[in-house]
Amino acid sequence: MNFRMTIYVLGILLAFEGVFFGLPALTAGIYGEKQVWLFLALALFCLIGGFLIASRKPKNRNIFARDGFVIVALSWIVMSFFGALPFYISGCIPQFVDALFESVSGFTTTGASILSDLDSMPKSMIMWRSFTHWIGGMGVLVFIMAILPLSGASNMHIMRAESPGPSVSKLVPRVKNTAMLLYIIYIFLTLFEVVLLWCGEMNFFEAVNVSFATAGTGGFSINNAGMAGTSAYSQIVATVFMILFGINFTSYFLLLTGKFREAFNTELRVFLLIIAAAIISISINVHQMFSSLGETVRHVSFTVGSIITTTGFSTADFNLWPAFSKTVLVLLMFIGACAGSTGGGIKVSRFLILGKSMRNQFRTMLHPRQVRKVRLDGRQIESETIRTINAYLFCYILICIVSMLVISLDGFDLTTNFTSVAATLNNIGPGLSRVGPTENFALFSPLSKGMLIFNMLAGRLEIFPMILLISPMTWKK
Amino acid sequence: MNFRMTIYVLGILLAFEGVFFGLPALTAGIYGEKQVWLFLALALFCLIGGFLIASRKPKNRNIFARDGFVIVALSWIVMSFFGALPFYISGCIPQFVDALFESVSGFTTTGASILSDLDSMPKSMIMWRSFTHWIGGMGVLVFIMAILPLSGASNMHIMRAESPGPSVSKLVPRVKNTAMLLYIIYIFLTLFEVVLLWCGEMNFFEAVNVSFATAGTGGFSINNAGMAGTSAYSQIVATVFMILFGINFTSYFLLLTGKFREAFNTELRVFLLIIAAAIISISINVHQMFSSLGETVRHVSFTVGSIITTTGFSTADFNLWPAFSKTVLVLLMFIGACAGSTGGGIKVSRFLILGKSMRNQFRTMLHPRQVRKVRLDGRQIESETIRTINAYLFCYILICIVSMLVISLDGFDLTTNFTSVAATLNNIGPGLSRVGPTENFALFSPLSKGMLIFNMLAGRLEIFPMILLISPMTWKK
Repeated sequence: MNFRMTIYVLGILLAFEGVFFGLPALTAGIYGEKQVWLFLALALFCLIGGFLIASRKPKNRNIFARDGFVIVALSWIVMSFFGALPFYISGCIPQFVDALFESVSGFTTTGASILSDLDSMPKSMIMWRSFTHWIGGMGVLVFIMAILPLSGASNMHIMRAESPGPSVSKLVPRVKNTAMLLYIIYIFLTLFEVVLLWCGEMNFFEAVNVSFATAGTGGFSINNAGMAGTSAYSQIVATVFMILFGINFTSYFLLLTGKFREAFNTELRVFLLIIAAAIISISINVHQMFSSLGETVRHVSFTVGSIITTTGFSTADFNLWPAFSKTVLVLLMFIGACAGSTGGGIKVSRFLILGKSMRNQFRTMLHPRQVRKVRLDGRQIESETIRTINAYLFCYILICIVSMLVISLDGFDLTTNFTSVAATLNNIGPGLSRVGPTENFALFSPLSKGMLIFNMLAGRLEIFPMILLISPMTWKK
Repeated sequence: MNFRMTIYVLGILLAFEGVFFGLPALTAGIYGEKQVWLFLALALFCLIGGFLIASRKPKNRNIFARDGFVIVALSWIVMSFFGALPFYISGCIPQFVDALFESVSGFTTTGASILSDLDSMPKSMIMWRSFTHWIGGMGVLVFIMAILPLSGASNMHIMRAESPGPSVSKLVPRVKNTAMLLYIIYIFLTLFEVVLLWCGEMNFFEAVNVSFATAGTGGFSINNAGMAGTSAYSQIVATVFMILFGINFTSYFLLLTGKFREAFNTELRVFLLIIAAAIISISINVHQMFSSLGETVRHVSFTVGSIITTTGFSTADFNLWPAFSKTVLVLLMFIGACAGSTGGGIKVSRFLILGKSMRNQFRTMLHPRQVRKVRLDGRQIESETIRTINAYLFCYILICIVSMLVISLDGFDLTTNFTSVAATLNNIGPGLSRVGPTENFALFSPLSKGMLIFNMLAGRLEIFPMILLISPMTWKK
């Protein structure tokens, strides 16, 4: 392990978090809230602390795959810990485990909350919550890499561990420039949504907050009414942008460079197909619950877009929908968005590769002498990638099992337990039954909350960094 | 495809089913039931029909892997179809889909029933239900292979497709003799249980029926009271034998030949460990629901043994147990018994291999240059086996998903839907909620019953034969 380098990156990260606290501090200043001093103090503390830690530059800046996983896992834990401090110190969230839950839920873009009354929260706290979504969506280390001078190989190890999807595609030869491009696309799309929402009934504060939560596919509400309380126009804008942020950012880069055919790759086409199929089948299933076809399609599209991209906003209480619709939604929770997007879940491309690999195995079973390779978009999928995805899937199932066991100790019904695990591990937010869209996660015991915090981090970092962090294998010489 | 050979095997199978009908015919004769003529007529019809079909012996008796899967899948469908006729023709089950459900549930050793009143059923029908468990437990084609002269390679393709577990281990060099040995162990263990149960309060009829249902890990009850109505002694005997029939039969062969260490292989040790852990944790969780520690442990052991071996008997209504216990039971449903036993589920050895393969992948991720092989009991697991297990797991998940969607159209709660899929695909029988141990499967629509019938067959034949039967890939030139 390159401990020096690990500490160094954590120092830089802390300094950046200090900078991030500037936005809620500014919000508190504008709205004359007393939390302005708290955010400024935290900003200063993190900035100075971070700089002090990072001032001892490591001589050896080379890191290996193992260091990459550990650095990413620790970074997210440290970031979440400091992110929880405003909630806790201000007294807005009296219990620290709850504050940590809220912070982790923010950064991992889950959007599951333990708060029941958002209307009484200071605007600066609401802004900080939404902002954590935006920071976590694209990944803070990707951001740091876009700015800091680190070696290419080291960058790649970190990027691979932090980025969603079975493999990282570099848009341009240099990792640093790829990170920069990703953030430019991210910022542009976010600004575009802010402008569109601002054109509607929302004020600037609301438009920015909702855009942050959409961009990160997070889903924290900004008031008790949530997205259900906004106009049809805003809901349609949010639906479109949720889906846009669930698409692989590589596709936008390819579109910008005129490669239209490559942009609409298999994953994107299947992703859009699943969305269409889900909207149609659920609309048929729930149409008598709404007054018109237009209303039905609007609410169903919003819900489907929100769940498959793992945003977790809601305009309708889908916990009251019939069993078939709920089953489709639970499936969408696991499918998740496209690789390389800000969305969570298992990802469409993993399902594609697993499906193709399964077909291949069937062929081998029928005709044992023929050997075929798995291909996606004309490219051959390495058997190493397939093995990693299989390990991911099995580990994913094991985490589900352990979580279900831990949470079942609280004694709630199986649907609550199962969907609370599904909703956190896939970074969605609301589940069904007692954690449905009109409920929150406050009911769980501290032990269960700890488990769900782990799930949110494991889900956002795609299992491996968190598992390897706690695995003795990693720490063996 | 070797169609001639397929038809030939189906003919032989039909003739054997005719022989099998002799047992319920005898039962009907002894108890003076009018169904004696029905069973005799069916026996004669199947015998003559089967012999006529099998009289045209195929010149080419060689079959390939593909033929093996198709023969096994078709055999089980044909066998279930004719097995349903007594229920339907006698009017004991008025709807054919229900009769087929009951027959498939019997042969696949699921034990899920659509009957609500067993006490009014003729004894011969009860005997036929129990007997289907016993026939299906070890596999009827294994039985045929033990007796008929088929070529070794052809036998192996059929045995591989019908036997439970990730790989078939031949006890002795010749497949035919292996099949024979397996049946000898099976018959001996069954007789042993009959004697022990007969020593208790049960009469001979009851002892035979319960032994059949235990041996096949089936779980059909013989009266409305079920195992809950039997003495503590009988329950303890059944518990022990359920677990014995959930163990790889290879272990018994190794024990008989004095290889004690090889008999207690990793899978068996883990299987017993899981049982012990489940019994202890559930006992702690439910102890206040029973009057004494002895009673608690007896009922919990029975339930755990019944669920993990996928038998599905019940002495207590575990649907009323707390969430933690129910979660453990649902997990046991999926884990299932040992490979090479009569039990269903995913099988302990598949989990072991997947777990070891996952660990291996972690190692590769941490140290990309080291290459290690997956080993179990000192033997290296072929990467082909691991790929097949991964394809199995993914296909298994897909079947769960499709089933959940189809069944959710009936509008029951998610726990009912999920556990009805789990209980049929893993060949257990009872699930939770509306399909709990005191309920039955009559409530579902014909469409859902059809889906569950498919699940039971797919589960018993370990996915591939049923999937390959309906896959266009198999039928392409």
